[in-house]
Amino acid sequence: MKKLILLCAIVLVLAAIIMACGPGRQTPTRESAVGGTTSQAGLSADAAQVAAERGLSPDDVTAALKTFMPSGQLDPYIMFASGGQGGQVLVVGVPSMRILKLIGVFTPEPWQGYGFGGAGNAILAQGKVGDNEILWGDTHHPGLSETNGEYDGQFLFINDKANARVAVIDLKDFATKQIVKNPLAINDHGGSFVTPNTEYIIEGPQYAAPLGWEYSDIANYKEEYRGVMTLWKFDRATGRIDPAQSFSIELPPYFQDLCDAGKKVSDGWLFCNSFNTELATGGVEDGNPPFEAGTAKNDTDYLHIVNWKKAEELYKAGKVETIKGMPLIRLDTAAKEGVLYFTPEPKSPHGADVTPGGEYVVVGGKLDPHVTIYSFDKIQKAIAALNEGTMTKDEFGVPVLSLDSTMEAQVELGLGPLHTVYDDKGYAYTSLFLDSVVARWTLGGPYQGLHPEEPWTLVQKLPVQYNIGHIAAAEGDTSSPDGNYVVALNKWSIDRFANVGPLLPQNFQLVDTSQTGDTMKVLYDMPIGMAEPHYAQIIKADKLAPLEVYPVGTNPETMQQDPNAITGPDQAKVVRNGNNVEIWMAVVRSHFTPEHIRIKQGDHVIWHFTNLEQTRDATHGFALPGYNINLSLEPGKTETIEFDANMSGTYAYYCTEFCSALHLEMLGYFMVEPN
Amino acid sequence: MKKLILLCAIVLVLAAIIMACGPGRQTPTRESAVGGTTSQAGLSADAAQVAAERGLSPDDVTAALKTFMPSGQLDPYIMFASGGQGGQVLVVGVPSMRILKLIGVFTPEPWQGYGFGGAGNAILAQGKVGDNEILWGDTHHPGLSETNGEYDGQFLFINDKANARVAVIDLKDFATKQIVKNPLAINDHGGSFVTPNTEYIIEGPQYAAPLGWEYSDIANYKEEYRGVMTLWKFDRATGRIDPAQSFSIELPPYFQDLCDAGKKVSDGWLFCNSFNTELATGGVEDGNPPFEAGTAKNDTDYLHIVNWKKAEELYKAGKVETIKGMPLIRLDTAAKEGVLYFTPEPKSPHGADVTPGGEYVVVGGKLDPHVTIYSFDKIQKAIAALNEGTMTKDEFGVPVLSLDSTMEAQVELGLGPLHTVYDDKGYAYTSLFLDSVVARWTLGGPYQGLHPEEPWTLVQKLPVQYNIGHIAAAEGDTSSPDGNYVVALNKWSIDRFANVGPLLPQNFQLVDTSQTGDTMKVLYDMPIGMAEPHYAQIIKADKLAPLEVYPVGTNPETMQQDPNAITGPDQAKVVRNGNNVEIWMAVVRSHFTPEHIRIKQGDHVIWHFTNLEQTRDATHGFALPGYNINLSLEPGKTETIEFDANMSGTYAYYCTEFCSALHLEMLGYFMVEPN
Repeated sequence: MKKLILLCAIVLVLAAIIMACGPGRQTPTRESAVGGTTSQAGLSADAAQVAAERGLSPDDVTAALKTFMPSGQLDPYIMFASGGQGGQVLVVGVPSMRILKLIGVFTPEPWQGYGFGGAGNAILAQGKVGDNEILWGDTHHPGLSETNGEYDGQFLFINDKANARVAVIDLKDFATKQIVKNPLAINDHGGSFVTPNTEYIIEGPQYAAPLGWEYSDIANYKEEYRGVMTLWKFDRATGRIDPAQSFSIELPPYFQDLCDAGKKVSDGWLFCNSFNTELATGGVEDGNPPFEAGTAKNDTDYLHIVNWKKAEELYKAGKVETIKGMPLIRLDTAAKEGVLYFTPEPKSPHGADVTPGGEYVVVGGKLDPHVTIYSFDKIQKAIAALNEGTMTKDEFGVPVLSLDSTMEAQVELGLGPLHTVYDDKGYAYTSLFLDSVVARWTLGGPYQGLHPEEPWTLVQKLPVQYNIGHIAAAEGDTSSPDGNYVVALNKWSIDRFANVGPLLPQNFQLVDTSQTGDTMKVLYDMPIGMAEPHYAQIIKADKLAPLEVYPVGTNPETMQQDPNAITGPDQAKVVRNGNNVEIWMAVVRSHFTPEHIRIKQGDHVIWHFTNLEQTRDATHGFALPGYNINLSLEPGKTETIEFDANMSGTYAYYCTEFCSALHLEMLGYFMVEPN
Repeated sequence: MKKLILLCAIVLVLAAIIMACGPGRQTPTRESAVGGTTSQAGLSADAAQVAAERGLSPDDVTAALKTFMPSGQLDPYIMFASGGQGGQVLVVGVPSMRILKLIGVFTPEPWQGYGFGGAGNAILAQGKVGDNEILWGDTHHPGLSETNGEYDGQFLFINDKANARVAVIDLKDFATKQIVKNPLAINDHGGSFVTPNTEYIIEGPQYAAPLGWEYSDIANYKEEYRGVMTLWKFDRATGRIDPAQSFSIELPPYFQDLCDAGKKVSDGWLFCNSFNTELATGGVEDGNPPFEAGTAKNDTDYLHIVNWKKAEELYKAGKVETIKGMPLIRLDTAAKEGVLYFTPEPKSPHGADVTPGGEYVVVGGKLDPHVTIYSFDKIQKAIAALNEGTMTKDEFGVPVLSLDSTMEAQVELGLGPLHTVYDDKGYAYTSLFLDSVVARWTLGGPYQGLHPEEPWTLVQKLPVQYNIGHIAAAEGDTSSPDGNYVVALNKWSIDRFANVGPLLPQNFQLVDTSQTGDTMKVLYDMPIGMAEPHYAQIIKADKLAPLEVYPVGTNPETMQQDPNAITGPDQAKVVRNGNNVEIWMAVVRSHFTPEHIRIKQGDHVIWHFTNLEQTRDATHGFALPGYNINLSLEPGKTETIEFDANMSGTYAYYCTEFCSALHLEMLGYFMVEPN
């Protein structure tokens, strides 16, 4: 009976709301509806029954309605998440949390034809380490290009922690265009992220090694191992990194971790946290403390404070030493010339996150229950007050600013604070790995008044499932975050999804942050079963303007007209020159021209393809059996493959995209006559 | 005012429903709810407001509530979808349509450590074509292992159309265990699917080629090009295909397409459709009709009817010719001995789908508006009535049964019928590519009475977005389909999702088929942005029983105890023997033992890893920079890598899985002294 009364109450509340949002509310509703779906507000007659049958709680129903995307309605936000050791980038619609695309970056991806004969092969080859081809990466931190501290939707950058490489993705076609290998570092972590106008893409280090990863025994750790931060110059005109205008800064062999760029009041500066100021070198097998213990002895490590505009001046003034082709500002120069400063940060920090206005840097200490908030203004005053006679220096000669002189506040959040992002209401959101929660807390200073609570106070701890690593907020790394959503990047999923074997998916949880106060709720669990994302950025979808089709004859590597493009099947031809055979092929629904290719074993084959279609989604594929070749030929694209016909035989090449009802009939024969 | 009245009406209906499902409905609801979410039935107070603000129609709301999975609730069905030219298999939860895992099959996948140094390398190497490594595939048709015509949840098989290969995936750990290369064929299509007790995995052909893809000019098409169907013997005890007990059947150079196995009354038989009975050879560049036209001239092609038990007898009796190590039943033998029969099927068919009881075979003609239903009983009678003197034969001597003698019915559905699946209510569902619809129609014979309608009649055409290729039903390829859901595998998505560039995702649409009659509705749009699935099977989740962790020391390739497994860090060691260095490494949160490896450039390194964890989800990774090595070490797993240390230098190896708060500290140094 009590339940019945409760249910009646719910119905009455519901009725009231629906009445209240009657005619007046219809207009926006009608506007927000999309062709195909009727725009009538309210609930279907069987909705309550479905909810009852499926055991959905009231919160479940609300979450379902907040995340469901009717067919054809487009997600208002797009999240770019790293793929971790998958070596890729994931493109996810928010709030529906559907994977819209996986972008091949450091790992070949045949659906995109990336690394199976076409332009991708040359791009992947840029990522070689010495003589060794590296066909995977450990993508960590995607960074969207920015203009005046706002995402501009033009480019995405991503680092490979495992081999110290940075890739450039063009958001005109969501494809990787460039990979640069760092000549001084063999691994990285504190990147990629950009300066407020994408002047530079920053690649910060992780595990110390000799410069250029030369051989040196770890016994020489303090003397010969170093950290290297690289500022890669980005050329917007070409859409490529220009290594010839890039430079690096030498750092002590602390394990520098995550970095962020100053913005607005702190523009021109960079901040990186670090661990292993203990200079631990491990060796558990010899009775030494393992790295996990050795690096956690000190109560504090060093926040790295870098004046990158000063560093740029030194580089342009030639105050560098060029090693392996990379101009390097040596550590003593950086210390002497005011490029590098330190200030203490609590135990085993992870993340150094600059507030939207650039006033503060927030650092979480994994083994400290607090986040520590540093004031940029105080840092500047402390630097100004430095006096050569009295200043403290670390053992590598870098000036150390006292914690008292730089700290604005500390907020106790709980166990394992890792990473902090921001919204439009003056809240900060910190992931707590050990507590498995998202902590919402208040900023002070200029952010006071945006939220109803006291500054620098914990507002809510929302449990997430489980072991949250990083966290992402809508437009969260810009000068003007949106609010509305935070995504928890949970590393363990354990019991959240059906069992798919000992290797479990991760769990992205969408969190509703639209209301102030103690109101955060988990809206959606999204499994990630092909990657281990470490970090993500979320951009407003309307900031992106990708191509729908390529202009006919576009080379995807240069994004220019390809000299070998053809404009019609009549231009298709095969030209033999000695044992070089060059083919110009036309591709259109649903046949290849030519359909017969006759060559001799040992011939060198150069094969150009142009998809003549200009209809959106009229993509063709090209598969050549036995030769490890597969291309994705989107409308207008021109691709070229080159190989030696080492095996004789009869090979039917065919279209791998279901392009029409007669797609199975889109084939030809590659006949290789034996010697 | 009218709106207000309508809204009131909705509220009253709603109220009535909620009352009706008051206390009585609470019990199942409470049971089905999950810890953390309250189990109270009904709708949250703000649900209506959310629906109004987001412009959700009543149908949208119902669809949202039917597909939303509260955190921790598990999908009742698991769909295995091919990854097309991605070369992978996708594991999807139904009805939430979330990708739970991508399984690396023919393409290396670094998140799983598949093909980057560990056991996967040997498996991928089994797939070589001649001297050429093939590191992608065009996966088309996943086939779940069956017992008595029911999915048993033990194994999954998948073919590579591009190179005529078949892979075996063990569903104990959702990992690929074997790849076999067909020695007689260079491409396939009509597979992989299984006989009712998984005696054989069938690999049917696609584009004709000389046996063993030997060189022969297409001018010799009729004389020298052939189709090859292979019956791969599966050994359940070892969980592997046994090539030594497998055999093939030679077919005419028609393009055999999709196949299915008879079941129950038709057990022992196989059925494949075909196209290009015209023996068209293309050559549009020389003024010939392109394949797409040349293969579409005839009004009918040939349904292939194969007696596989008879073929098995011939193979065991030695009535074969062994070519390239594969026993082959030649075409004349197959024709003479009653292994192979033909019967006409309408224009450019695609799909030959056996009804749950095995009574009928349904074929869709892409260029014919009908599906044609063949009766197995009539086929048997027609075969029995064959008379050597009077029988019709095709130009290769294969007996042809008249359409009148084999056809049960034809149903006109619309444009481009491709593929047909079944439910538990006597309905068939056919994808219509050109109409972009899912057609529901009624079966007759023993299925009459399960549905209210007349037999062999069209019931509903449901629009889908867009260009549907294949279609999958819950347990749809078994002897006892479930009903409830059909998934439309749409090849084009065009305007369904946010623009992610010229290469668009596909669109899987979940269709509600739970009610009879004209009631099908699209529930959910799922983008597929990393693959082009061609076919899928959907199994009840409770039929799967994967491992949660490996017993400590399990070798993932053999699934047996690995001789190089260790049981504790105390057993970790490095042993040098000349220039061979062998390492036994212990892996546990959060350190490696040993943390220092000292070798010389040119040394040959054999490195064994054992993850000592038995906690679910306590996976570690192992990345070695510069050497293209990354392993996924799930709890209990033992892996071995082997390589030559060709580059000198200092390399920090580290754990690539975020395994604990101190995961960043899980590293060691690999020091390679130069010669």
